[in-house]
Amino acid sequence: MAITVAVVGVGLIGGSFALAVRQAGIANRVIGVSSPATISKAQSLGIVDAGLPLEDAIPQADLVFLSATIHAIIDVLPRLHGLVKPGAIVTDAGSTKRAIVRRAQSVEGLTFIGGHPMAGKEQSGVEQAEASLFQGRPWVLTPTSASNDDQVGELRDMLEQIGADTMVMSPEDHDAAVARTSHLPQLLSTALAASLDQHFREETPVIAGPGLLDATRLAQSPFAVWRDILETNQDEVLDAVDALLETLQEQREILGRDVALGDQFDCAGAFARRLRNR
Amino acid sequence: MAITVAVVGVGLIGGSFALAVRQAGIANRVIGVSSPATISKAQSLGIVDAGLPLEDAIPQADLVFLSATIHAIIDVLPRLHGLVKPGAIVTDAGSTKRAIVRRAQSVEGLTFIGGHPMAGKEQSGVEQAEASLFQGRPWVLTPTSASNDDQVGELRDMLEQIGADTMVMSPEDHDAAVARTSHLPQLLSTALAASLDQHFREETPVIAGPGLLDATRLAQSPFAVWRDILETNQDEVLDAVDALLETLQEQREILGRDVALGDQFDCAGAFARRLRNR
Repeated sequence: MAITVAVVGVGLIGGSFALAVRQAGIANRVIGVSSPATISKAQSLGIVDAGLPLEDAIPQADLVFLSATIHAIIDVLPRLHGLVKPGAIVTDAGSTKRAIVRRAQSVEGLTFIGGHPMAGKEQSGVEQAEASLFQGRPWVLTPTSASNDDQVGELRDMLEQIGADTMVMSPEDHDAAVARTSHLPQLLSTALAASLDQHFREETPVIAGPGLLDATRLAQSPFAVWRDILETNQDEVLDAVDALLETLQEQREILGRDVALGDQFDCAGAFARRLRNR
Repeated sequence: MAITVAVVGVGLIGGSFALAVRQAGIANRVIGVSSPATISKAQSLGIVDAGLPLEDAIPQADLVFLSATIHAIIDVLPRLHGLVKPGAIVTDAGSTKRAIVRRAQSVEGLTFIGGHPMAGKEQSGVEQAEASLFQGRPWVLTPTSASNDDQVGELRDMLEQIGADTMVMSPEDHDAAVARTSHLPQLLSTALAASLDQHFREETPVIAGPGLLDATRLAQSPFAVWRDILETNQDEVLDAVDALLETLQEQREILGRDVALGDQFDCAGAFARRLRNR
């Protein structure tokens, strides 16, 4: 039985989700809540059937998917009060989970399941949307005691149907993990590129192999994408940065000491291979 | 007029060079100097015409290409004394240049042009050799006052013919540059993966997007490849690590300060884009 999905924020992630649930036969109607310009693009691309204001879209939806910046999601949550159809699932795509889940819990009568699809592209925007974006990618759900177990199971089934590799963890565990696997690599890439930017004058040829391209790929991300993430995960990010600084200091001390540095390379290689053999 | 090339060390780089100069019509004969097992593989793959001991191979060669580890190149240089045909070009593929060039200058009567092809693959070995390996990749030459200008021009022409993007700089400038664009990213990727290895127990699922795969790709490199590089470039590597540590410390202090952190992201993004738009 196909359902109506409301996508609040029709960008790369929201648009891809709309395409994916439609292609999987989960949704027969997708309502977008976004700016008129975005809705018009999304309609012409066959991504949404209609664009409506939040107040008109939510009461029609069996599944509400909030996919905007973290602060926009936090701001929209209280506005859902009294609008959500009984039994409808409300979830989101925010990149940190504690702040969002905490706010959702403060909205009376709202049952909510936090989510984080770990997929993306270098380019953002609804024009980049693809039904296959989530295939084979991790999608973390962070239900709490205030979530409905049946809904968690239903949502998980739907996400698996669109090809995502779902897993369930607490908002706390999620934020601790992504601080290290996502936010730290971003900050590192940014610091490396900023450091090299200082060293290499514009006229100096930067001789570089593919390694530097990999290492600076994330440095291309605009701060606008990262501001909310870093702000809502600052404690875990600081812990992760401090642990890395410690490892780097240690590495600096053992440069030239073959056995110790070789051991660090071995540990690093083991982790890198484990990551690839999951 | 096709020439005879001696490749000392027939691995990924040496084998690819042999294939490339043959395909470009530069060489009509390639002699390999390597272990019997490697020579036999290289012969069966059509990469070398013959395998000979150094003492027999060098006197026949119009171009000598030393492509082994840095210390192996350093060890072989004095053995070239008196073997090189008058007018023959001697060059190498070592990843750092000061130590190698210094040693070459100490060998009486040897004219030498240091080189560094910035190309590679995740897998090493002669089986991985490809004629196209150097196409579109930087190839730095580091001649000194002891090099022969005509030979530099000839070598440069040959390298351009096999598709490399050649540039000339001093051994000092080369080592300073690669400390930052190659050795630093390697150490950073190693430190990141080692730090995460400490944090994530084997049983914990590591949730990760493509960013972490990019950031840990270099961490898969074996220490054996890096030991000589780091040892022969330790002063520049330490400077580069220190500059990065300073940037990371600054970043840690400005986490949560939007304007300052945004500025760092902007500088980093500018460098990353400049790197891609060369």
